[in-house]
Amino acid sequence: MRERNRHRGRCERAQPQDRPETGASGGSPADEDFLTLGHEAVGVVEDPGDTDFERGDVVTPTVRRPPPTGPNEYFERGGADMAPPEATVERGIDRAHGFMSEYFTSPAEFLVPVPEELAELGFLIEPASITEKALELAEASRSSFAWDPETALVLGNGSLGILTVAMLVDGMEVYCLGRRDRPDPTIDIVEKLGATYVDSRETPVDEIPDVHEPADLIYEATGYAKHAFQSIDALAPNGVAALLGVPEAWNFEIDGGRLHGELVLKNKALVGSVNSGPRHFRAGIERLQSLPSWFFEDYLTRVVHYESFEEAFERSETTIKTAVAFDSL
Amino acid sequence: MRERNRHRGRCERAQPQDRPETGASGGSPADEDFLTLGHEAVGVVEDPGDTDFERGDVVTPTVRRPPPTGPNEYFERGGADMAPPEATVERGIDRAHGFMSEYFTSPAEFLVPVPEELAELGFLIEPASITEKALELAEASRSSFAWDPETALVLGNGSLGILTVAMLVDGMEVYCLGRRDRPDPTIDIVEKLGATYVDSRETPVDEIPDVHEPADLIYEATGYAKHAFQSIDALAPNGVAALLGVPEAWNFEIDGGRLHGELVLKNKALVGSVNSGPRHFRAGIERLQSLPSWFFEDYLTRVVHYESFEEAFERSETTIKTAVAFDSL
Repeated sequence: MRERNRHRGRCERAQPQDRPETGASGGSPADEDFLTLGHEAVGVVEDPGDTDFERGDVVTPTVRRPPPTGPNEYFERGGADMAPPEATVERGIDRAHGFMSEYFTSPAEFLVPVPEELAELGFLIEPASITEKALELAEASRSSFAWDPETALVLGNGSLGILTVAMLVDGMEVYCLGRRDRPDPTIDIVEKLGATYVDSRETPVDEIPDVHEPADLIYEATGYAKHAFQSIDALAPNGVAALLGVPEAWNFEIDGGRLHGELVLKNKALVGSVNSGPRHFRAGIERLQSLPSWFFEDYLTRVVHYESFEEAFERSETTIKTAVAFDSL
Repeated sequence: MRERNRHRGRCERAQPQDRPETGASGGSPADEDFLTLGHEAVGVVEDPGDTDFERGDVVTPTVRRPPPTGPNEYFERGGADMAPPEATVERGIDRAHGFMSEYFTSPAEFLVPVPEELAELGFLIEPASITEKALELAEASRSSFAWDPETALVLGNGSLGILTVAMLVDGMEVYCLGRRDRPDPTIDIVEKLGATYVDSRETPVDEIPDVHEPADLIYEATGYAKHAFQSIDALAPNGVAALLGVPEAWNFEIDGGRLHGELVLKNKALVGSVNSGPRHFRAGIERLQSLPSWFFEDYLTRVVHYESFEEAFERSETTIKTAVAFDSL
């Protein structure tokens, strides 16, 4: 079942713009003092072993693998994305080495075929799948009644936020929250996509309904804990906020009575979402294929060869998404 | 489309045990200074008018009606329970007189037929429908993955909490939170139903997982705002808390960072739920028919004739549910 991939593709380093990189979540494999990064990857099958893959197939790996204690119910039913933290490890993030290497191995069940035309951008399938999973949970939460979301609010103009704006603009009025000054390349992309940039320093999340309009769907990609609770006020009746950030402990005051009543009287929902599975990867592929090519040109701001990997950690005002290339595909 | 009902049944006054009756929500019809109570009712059709009902049919009315501005999209598609507060009135609660009278009228679309054997208890269909709607929303929110809830936690041993415990015990391990001393008739019912009573003064909501076990499903019927947020910690991974209380404004501190991360890393959800529609009434009927008769005997602690209505407002330690009778069915 195991196969070897010659990893000629790219490993990506996410650059969330709205949260500090504290290294507070995730960690090295047991008995090791380092972690190979890379959880957004694309590669080419070098040795398919005993699988249905063929040499030369382009694939992208999912992130979760069974924990050291072995496979559990979540993995057995193909729902590793719903496993609690103790029931999984995450390659490149938590207790398992990532894919940022010339070769990596993976069981076939954790590899998703990538169409040839998306091969060069295959490392975007994992972040797209994160959004697909969150949207799936959000939509499911509204599936017991007629719900036709018209307005979406994406919190965060980091690489995940921008990608999500691109994935949502076909069919919805989209707002994207950030706290950057113009000129800024992320604001440019947001506006080129037809979405509206909202500066959180001028318009806090809970004032967006008054200044713009309430949102049927909120996608939180800032990791800023107050946003999770301010979202309740920014939602339209029957709206849902998908939460994706993992902030550290932070005590603050809320008007919990009013927010509780707001959730109830307007049938609102908050859904947390982490990780993603093969079906979300496949949905991500389909959605990425529908995006215009200019988006990827503007979005992928740097490709660094792995021998110059330090450069991938350099930040500038114009950085959106950086890829690390091991070989050409 | 209008019909007249001779209301020979019962109107019920909810007695939530865990929240004060402040009269802070709801109100009189415009240009009137009183509100006829009664939103949990059963009656008999006296004059079916131009409807499909027949004289003598036992019916229970739904609560929401179009606002003074007239029917809107929610009513047009039969989804009044999802209308925001400004798009509806509520009979017996908010800006429309209730059913606590000898006769009331209602369009046929807002009347649900009641089976003969449930006629005497038909006023319990509305509260049961409130739970059905909340469970529908909660289950929908978990419908995108394999979810088989085994443990439920009902917050509140008021009349709605107790009824919900009865509705959930078939198939789940149920805990019910209250803050009453033994001996107490609600604790007796909880235990007779096979559920476990949890005293919130000994075990706060967020400590229930340690003392007992985490809950796949939480049903909040206390209206105590801190419970909405403590629920996040009381949930098992992939769990959902259905919120039903409408507390007043109340500022308090939470560890918003940790709770945000808890929602995300364990794919948890909070869903607010208000009101209910005809399909929830029908589901409530089915569920009530499955409950043992002893439950209703223990639960309905008092029936008061409407001419002695003041007695229905008297409270005692043994009161669970009081009905006001206008005529025998």
